[in-house]
Amino acid sequence: MTEKKEKYRIIGVDPGTNFLGYAILEVNNKKLSLITMSTLALSHLDSQNEKLKRIFEKMDWAIRHFNPDEMSIEQPFYGKNIQSMLKLGRAQGVAIAAAIHNNIPVVEYLPKVVKKSVVGNGNAAKEQVAAMLGHILGRPIEPSYFDASDALALAVCHFYQTSNMLASGKKHDTWKAFMQDHPNRVVK
Amino acid sequence: MTEKKEKYRIIGVDPGTNFLGYAILEVNNKKLSLITMSTLALSHLDSQNEKLKRIFEKMDWAIRHFNPDEMSIEQPFYGKNIQSMLKLGRAQGVAIAAAIHNNIPVVEYLPKVVKKSVVGNGNAAKEQVAAMLGHILGRPIEPSYFDASDALALAVCHFYQTSNMLASGKKHDTWKAFMQDHPNRVVK
Repeated sequence: MTEKKEKYRIIGVDPGTNFLGYAILEVNNKKLSLITMSTLALSHLDSQNEKLKRIFEKMDWAIRHFNPDEMSIEQPFYGKNIQSMLKLGRAQGVAIAAAIHNNIPVVEYLPKVVKKSVVGNGNAAKEQVAAMLGHILGRPIEPSYFDASDALALAVCHFYQTSNMLASGKKHDTWKAFMQDHPNRVVK
Repeated sequence: MTEKKEKYRIIGVDPGTNFLGYAILEVNNKKLSLITMSTLALSHLDSQNEKLKRIFEKMDWAIRHFNPDEMSIEQPFYGKNIQSMLKLGRAQGVAIAAAIHNNIPVVEYLPKVVKKSVVGNGNAAKEQVAAMLGHILGRPIEPSYFDASDALALAVCHFYQTSNMLASGKKHDTWKAFMQDHPNRVVK
């Protein structure tokens, strides 16, 4: 038995320079349901400052509106170049700041961990990930952009990673206990 | 004549993974004075999440406490590697989010522009920058760490860059007008 809340929500966030995907996943007694998934367009905004402002405001709004308990975000392990990684880092930073501002913890996962966790194959295509998410959630996942399904995959991965821990015999009564046992899972 | 406020404050921020430097510069009728400069130690914090949380909270506090009108931040142009740039980007992102949250604009400058602006030499050493800052402000600048003097240099650079524009015959009645005329100066 665990004291981890039976009903809680995870916000998955996939921030990019041109689009930000996010999804709210509800876990109710280990049953998953999709509350919402959306893609925020950023490419029409002129400056990075405006993009960062839009990301912060949208994430702050989404956290206050949908009340998730945890944020799951991508941990990129390579990039086209130094400047693009700096921009991506800034975009992630303002999304993380929205979580900090609303007192919810942030965990990050490598893309291959997300794919492995959701599809069983660390090299799965985005289409395969979306199809498997549809199967898991019992409804078609047809995102207009893959940013939203990638965000949903991050949320589902976080559920699997934490509930697998619970199922594996190790007790993680609370999120804090999970983080203490798996410091490498937490953004650092 | 310009309608730009005669008295205003600039916060310079130099965010890093182990230390964050910040400084508050007051401009009163083009006369500069240092309100405060400080280095925030981060290396004792275990996770990046804790570091980002500390940066956001400190910057949010500093902006509310000292009430700066603008933020000046470094635009790094190279890094040791992709992962370090991602971490630096995240640290910058949460500092920028604190500015967004408090509705103050953010402008970024390349390190060589800061050095050229303050010392007249884009390749000046940190010691030379600190010495020149002491000369400009009429008081010794002996930071315990160079992160704080680098942050002060960012604030002084921003003053010079904007006041030089004012002195060059181009009218920038407001910060907004300056940004419109110099979109490449604004974080993007």
